[in-house]
Amino acid sequence: MSYTLRELASKVQGSVKGNGDLVIEKLGTLENGSGNELGFLANPKYQVQLSTTSLGAVLVKTDELASSLDNAIIVANPYLAFAQLSHLFTPTTESWAGVHQSAVVSDSATLGRNVVIGPNVVIDDDVEIADDCVIGAGCVISRGVIIGRGSRLYPNVTLYHDVVIGEECIFHSTSVIGADGFGFAPHQGRWEKINQLGAVEIGDRVEIGASTTIDRGAIENTRIGHGVKIDNQVQIAHNVVIGDNSAIAASTAIAGSTKIGSSCTISGGVCMAGHLTIADHVHITGMSMISNSIDEAGSYSSGMGMEPTAKWRRTVARVRRIDDMAKQFSQLKQQVSKILEKVDNK
Amino acid sequence: MSYTLRELASKVQGSVKGNGDLVIEKLGTLENGSGNELGFLANPKYQVQLSTTSLGAVLVKTDELASSLDNAIIVANPYLAFAQLSHLFTPTTESWAGVHQSAVVSDSATLGRNVVIGPNVVIDDDVEIADDCVIGAGCVISRGVIIGRGSRLYPNVTLYHDVVIGEECIFHSTSVIGADGFGFAPHQGRWEKINQLGAVEIGDRVEIGASTTIDRGAIENTRIGHGVKIDNQVQIAHNVVIGDNSAIAASTAIAGSTKIGSSCTISGGVCMAGHLTIADHVHITGMSMISNSIDEAGSYSSGMGMEPTAKWRRTVARVRRIDDMAKQFSQLKQQVSKILEKVDNK
Amino acid sequence: MSYTLRELASKVQGSVKGNGDLVIEKLGTLENGSGNELGFLANPKYQVQLSTTSLGAVLVKTDELASSLDNAIIVANPYLAFAQLSHLFTPTTESWAGVHQSAVVSDSATLGRNVVIGPNVVIDDDVEIADDCVIGAGCVISRGVIIGRGSRLYPNVTLYHDVVIGEECIFHSTSVIGADGFGFAPHQGRWEKINQLGAVEIGDRVEIGASTTIDRGAIENTRIGHGVKIDNQVQIAHNVVIGDNSAIAASTAIAGSTKIGSSCTISGGVCMAGHLTIADHVHITGMSMISNSIDEAGSYSSGMGMEPTAKWRRTVARVRRIDDMAKQFSQLKQQVSKILEKVDNK
Repeated sequence: MSYTLRELASKVQGSVKGNGDLVIEKLGTLENGSGNELGFLANPKYQVQLSTTSLGAVLVKTDELASSLDNAIIVANPYLAFAQLSHLFTPTTESWAGVHQSAVVSDSATLGRNVVIGPNVVIDDDVEIADDCVIGAGCVISRGVIIGRGSRLYPNVTLYHDVVIGEECIFHSTSVIGADGFGFAPHQGRWEKINQLGAVEIGDRVEIGASTTIDRGAIENTRIGHGVKIDNQVQIAHNVVIGDNSAIAASTAIAGSTKIGSSCTISGGVCMAGHLTIADHVHITGMSMISNSIDEAGSYSSGMGMEPTAKWRRTVARVRRIDDMAKQFSQLKQQVSKILEKVDNK
Repeated sequence: MSYTLRELASKVQGSVKGNGDLVIEKLGTLENGSGNELGFLANPKYQVQLSTTSLGAVLVKTDELASSLDNAIIVANPYLAFAQLSHLFTPTTESWAGVHQSAVVSDSATLGRNVVIGPNVVIDDDVEIADDCVIGAGCVISRGVIIGRGSRLYPNVTLYHDVVIGEECIFHSTSVIGADGFGFAPHQGRWEKINQLGAVEIGDRVEIGASTTIDRGAIENTRIGHGVKIDNQVQIAHNVVIGDNSAIAASTAIAGSTKIGSSCTISGGVCMAGHLTIADHVHITGMSMISNSIDEAGSYSSGMGMEPTAKWRRTVARVRRIDDMAKQFSQLKQQVSKILEKVDNK
Repeated sequence: MSYTLRELASKVQGSVKGNGDLVIEKLGTLENGSGNELGFLANPKYQVQLSTTSLGAVLVKTDELASSLDNAIIVANPYLAFAQLSHLFTPTTESWAGVHQSAVVSDSATLGRNVVIGPNVVIDDDVEIADDCVIGAGCVISRGVIIGRGSRLYPNVTLYHDVVIGEECIFHSTSVIGADGFGFAPHQGRWEKINQLGAVEIGDRVEIGASTTIDRGAIENTRIGHGVKIDNQVQIAHNVVIGDNSAIAASTAIAGSTKIGSSCTISGGVCMAGHLTIADHVHITGMSMISNSIDEAGSYSSGMGMEPTAKWRRTVARVRRIDDMAKQFSQLKQQVSKILEKVDNK
C-alpha cells in the first residue's frame, strides 16, 4: 500500500504543496512520523509541531499552515480527510475466503455472494447473510438472524435468534446481541423469569465495540438506529431505542426502555436509568448519572473530578453534613436579621 | 404457539371476561398490541391505556379494571401471570439435538439423558452434565466442572475447571465463570501471583447475564446462592458470597470477599469495596459506591443525578471549597454570638 | 500434590517450628483450615485466630507469633511466601497436549516447542507462538500475532491482527486485544470511521482479566508495560500507554491516549478521561473520576460513599443549591461585618 501525495490529495479534494510525486507508505503522527508518512493537523494546539515534524507531508487547513512544510495537502477538513485516507492503508486482517470447511452452516441458511465464513463459525437454521459479509472465526449466528450487505463480524461474536442487522455494520469480538433482557416478577420471595419475546433490530452503518451487550426486548424489539457507533463494554438493556447517528463511549450502561434521541454523544462510564426519554443532540459528559429525562438539547453532567485523597475526605465529610449546615445557616440568617433590626432601630 | 383465552386463564388461575374462545397468538403491549395478542396492566399509571388499546385481551387485577375491555383475564397478580405465560410463547432458539458431531467431548465426561451439546463445544475430562442440559455452540467446559439438571448455557460461555453449577440455571453468552481472582503479593516492585486455588459454587435457578464474570476463590470458593439473578457485564471478584434470591443489575462490580445477604436488590453501575458484609433485604440504588458494611435492611444511595453542565460546574467548584466555607461559617457563628451578647447586654 | 512442612519451608527460605515431617496437602485459611493444610498470617488484625485455628501449620513472621502454634514456618514475608507456595498446589486445569486435531492452524504460522493448542483454536497466517505457550480452546489468533515464550491464553480469547505479546503472560477468557479504537470524524451529521492502523504491544509477565478489552492504536500502538496486572472487565482505549508494574482493578475504563506511569495502582470502577498523563506511583481509590493529569505520586479520590437513601436525598438537594447558599453566605458575612463596625464604633 503506497500512494503518491498527488493521488492522496485527489482522493480528498485537496491541493498539493511541494512534491506531488512523494511516495507515502503509511500514516503517521506529527510527533513521531517519518519521511514516507503522511500526518494531519486538526487541533491548533499542536500547530507548533509543524516546524519540528519529520513527517514526509501533512494534511493542513490553509496555505499559511503549510508555510513551514516542504510537502502538504491543503484541505478544508484535515481530520475528515485523514479519516477517509485511513481506509486506504488498512492491512489485510485475516486470510480466509469463502466458507471455511470447519464452519457449521445449516442447510436452511442463505449466504449471499462473496461472503466469507471463517473457521468454526456456527450458522443455525433460517439465517440470511447478504452479499459481501465477513463472519469471523468462532462467531455463532443463531436461528433466524438476518445480516445486511457488507457487514462484518470480528471473531467470537454471538448473535441470538431473530436479531436483524442492517448493511455495512461492524461488530467487534465477543459482543453479544440479543441475550435476554433482565426481567423477573417477584413471587413468594423468588424471581419468576419473564421470557424475553422481542428481538433486536440494528440499522445500517452501525459499529458495536468489543464485549458490548445489547439485550433483546421483553415484548417488542430493542432498536438501534442507522449510523449509531457504540464503543467497548457498553450495556444496552431491553427495549432501549437509540436514534440515528448517536455515539456512546465505553463502559456506559443504559437501563431498560430508555429512548435516546438522534445525534446524541454519550461519554464513557455513564449510567442511565430506565424508562427515560433523552432529546436529540444531547451531550453527556463522562461518568454522569442520568436519572431523569432530558427534554432539551445541550450538555449535561454529574461526575466530580478527583482530588488528593486527604483533601477529598474532608470535602466528603463536609458534604455529608451539608443538610445540618444549611439548617444552621438559616438560623444564623434569622439571628442576623434580628440584630439588624435592633441595631438599625437604635 | 396459540392458545384460547380460556386455556391461558386456567394456567394462571384467572377468570375470563368476554370470549373464552378468543385465540391468542402472541403477547403484546397496551400501546402497540393487536387483536390476537394478550397484554397486561400492572402499573396503575398506564390504566388510561385500557380504553384505547387494540389488544385482543388484557390481564388485569379486578373486574372494575376490565369494565372497558371486551376480553380480559382477571387475576390476582397480572405481572406474575404475564411472566408465567411468557414461557408459553417462547420460540425455538436453536436447532441442534443430541451431541453435535463437531463437539469435542472427553471420554471421561458424563452426559445425562436428553442433553444437547451444540457445535464446536469443548468438554474436558471428568465433566459431569446432568439430564436435560443445553450447552450452546462454542462453549468451553473445563476439567471437572459439574452442571445440574436442566441448566442451559447460551453460546460461547466459558467455565474454568472445577466450577459447580446447580439445577435449572441459565448462563448467557460470553459469561466467564472461574477465572483467576485478582491476587498478587508485592515483591521488590513486582507482583507475585497468588495462584487461585478455590473454585466457584453456583446454586439452583441462577441466571447469569452476557459478559458477566465470576472469579474463582483464592483458597476457598466464591459462592452464589439459589435463585440469584445477575444481569450483563457484572463483575464478581474472588470469594464473594451472595445470598439466595438476591438480584444484581448490569455493570455492577463487587470486590473480593464481600458477603451480600439474601433477597438484596442491587441496581446497575454500583461498585462495592472488598471485605464488606451486607445484610439481607438491602436495596442499593444505581451508581452508588458502597465502601462500608451495611447492617440493616433498607435502601442506600450515593449517586448524584445530572444537571446542565454549566450549572453543574458551578456546583462542583463550590463543593470543592466546602471545607473552607464550613470553617468560615463557624467563625461567623462565633462573631454573631459575640454581637448578640453585646447587643443583648445593652 | 503433597509436601512436608520442611520442604515447603525450604522453598521460601523459612524455618520450621514443630514437626517438619508434617504432610501438607492443601493451602487453607485460619478460619476454616484443617490439619493437613497450611495457612498464613499477614494482617495483624487476624492474629487472634492463631489460637483457635485448626490449620496443620501457619506461615508467620516471628517466633513470638508462632508461640501458640504446634507447627509453623517462620518467614520474613508470610504473604509473599504464601503467594510463592500457591504455585505448588495448582491442579491441572486442562487435559490437552500438543496441537489438538480440531484446531485450524495456518501453514505459515510458527509454533515453538512444547506448545499446547487446544480444541477449535484458530491460528491465522504468519502467527508466531514461542516455546511453552498454552492456547486454550476456542481462542482466535489473527494474522501476524506474535506471542512470547511461556504465555498462556485461557479459552475463547481473541487477538486481532499484529498484536505483540511478551513472555510469561496470562490472558483470561473472552479478553479481546486489538479491536478498533473508537475513532470517528463527524461529517454532515454522520460519523466517518478512522481505520485504526496501529497495533497493541504487551510486555512480559502481564496478566489480563476475563472480558477485558485493549484497543489497537489509531496510528501508533497501544502499549502495556512489563509486569502490568489488569483485572476483569477493564477497558483500555486506543493509544493508552501503561508503565511497568502498574495494576488496574476491575471495571475501570481508561480513555484514549492517556499515559499512566509505572507502579501505579488503580482501584475498581475508575474512569479516566483521555489525553492525560499520570505520574509514577499514583494510587487512585475506587470509583474515582480522573479528568485531569496527575503530576505527583500520591493517592487521589473522588468517589462518595453511600448513606441511607432518605438522608442521601436531602444531602443531594442541598448540594444542588450550594452555589445559592454560598452567595447568600457572602452577603451574610458582609452584613455581619457592617454590624461589627457599628457595634464596635459605639
